[in-house]
Amino acid sequence: MLKLYFAPGACSFVPHVALEIIKAETGAGFEPSLVKLHKGEQSTPEYLALNPNAQVPVLLVDGKPLTQIVAICDYLDRSAPQAGLLPADPWARAQAMSMLAWMNNTVHPTFTHIFRPEQFTSGDEGIAEQKRFNTARFAQLLERIQGHIAGAHPWLFGDRITFPDIYAVVFWRWGGIAGVDPAALPAYQAYVEQLAALPAFAAAIERERIPLHMYRKA
Amino acid sequence: MLKLYFAPGACSFVPHVALEIIKAETGAGFEPSLVKLHKGEQSTPEYLALNPNAQVPVLLVDGKPLTQIVAICDYLDRSAPQAGLLPADPWARAQAMSMLAWMNNTVHPTFTHIFRPEQFTSGDEGIAEQKRFNTARFAQLLERIQGHIAGAHPWLFGDRITFPDIYAVVFWRWGGIAGVDPAALPAYQAYVEQLAALPAFAAAIERERIPLHMYRKA
Repeated sequence: MLKLYFAPGACSFVPHVALEIIKAETGAGFEPSLVKLHKGEQSTPEYLALNPNAQVPVLLVDGKPLTQIVAICDYLDRSAPQAGLLPADPWARAQAMSMLAWMNNTVHPTFTHIFRPEQFTSGDEGIAEQKRFNTARFAQLLERIQGHIAGAHPWLFGDRITFPDIYAVVFWRWGGIAGVDPAALPAYQAYVEQLAALPAFAAAIERERIPLHMYRKA
Repeated sequence: MLKLYFAPGACSFVPHVALEIIKAETGAGFEPSLVKLHKGEQSTPEYLALNPNAQVPVLLVDGKPLTQIVAICDYLDRSAPQAGLLPADPWARAQAMSMLAWMNNTVHPTFTHIFRPEQFTSGDEGIAEQKRFNTARFAQLLERIQGHIAGAHPWLFGDRITFPDIYAVVFWRWGGIAGVDPAALPAYQAYVEQLAALPAFAAAIERERIPLHMYRKA
């Protein structure tokens, strides 16, 4: 049985929804395990033994830990290719991996510069400037994702949900937290609402107890 | 025929060496294409059509572009599994992908904060503080890589060179540029020198005309 360590609204949402899709496709269940970041549960000796970076997600396979979203996604796809979480065609798969990698190394850390700025600089002024700079950049990146969504048919890589679709939902929520006005992103919003209504998304959203729209006018 | 767009000393070194290893294993050649970043060749309309992010590497497959190191690595491994650039065993492969993803989303951008700080903040003071902060962080990350190297037998994932071994050589050079004193990293230095002497590495190093050791005492 696979076990997933996740935190509500974190990027662990990507394997969380993926495991729900795999469950629906193959019948293979998984054990979700909530990590309370606000209580520091990611920094206990037990958790650090699984992931010295003190991050979610961790996927436990036969008791052994696998870290890093991209590696977990690749592993899940190779274990359950029938779930279609990456395209079967090698070239389409490569393009989906490329978007997944870009989301992971560019879009995701741009938000981290806003949410955990102390990971990248120090000093009150430096932190304030970094948050301002990256909030503007994050808004641009969400617009780029909206551009990709404009070409979706119906999903980013065709008729199956793939990992980048799920990551796009995570970034939508983070945009709200970062104060990016969703009024500029109507196609993105419609896309996210369509995805969120699907059973696998709805199950993960309910288990994580996360509202989809986080934006509050300043 | 595969075509690789690379820049000397950039992370494109990873697929560059990989393609040399594939050539040696399978006989399949590739066309290396130098992108002169200092002349802005990554920002020409022709290049932006291949990669709107104006970055190397780009792998051209039958004239179609693939971007992102991690996606290129996965694609090359799937195309030429006999080159062993990722382990054949699924769990070992997942662990190598995890290290590759960590190098790509954590170690690599930490250096970018030093080398291209204007991508992450603005203002002279903010930029200076960010460079200082990330130089210290980069030194720690190189020590972590040295920790992984301590467990190498002989290479990070066993008896075949895998992508993380090649990325480790890139970071070694970048450490010198960032001013990280190699005196603290003797095992890392020995490892890099061992790798650099192998034919595939030597060929890529010669084509890129890059010295291995960049450190200059301040």
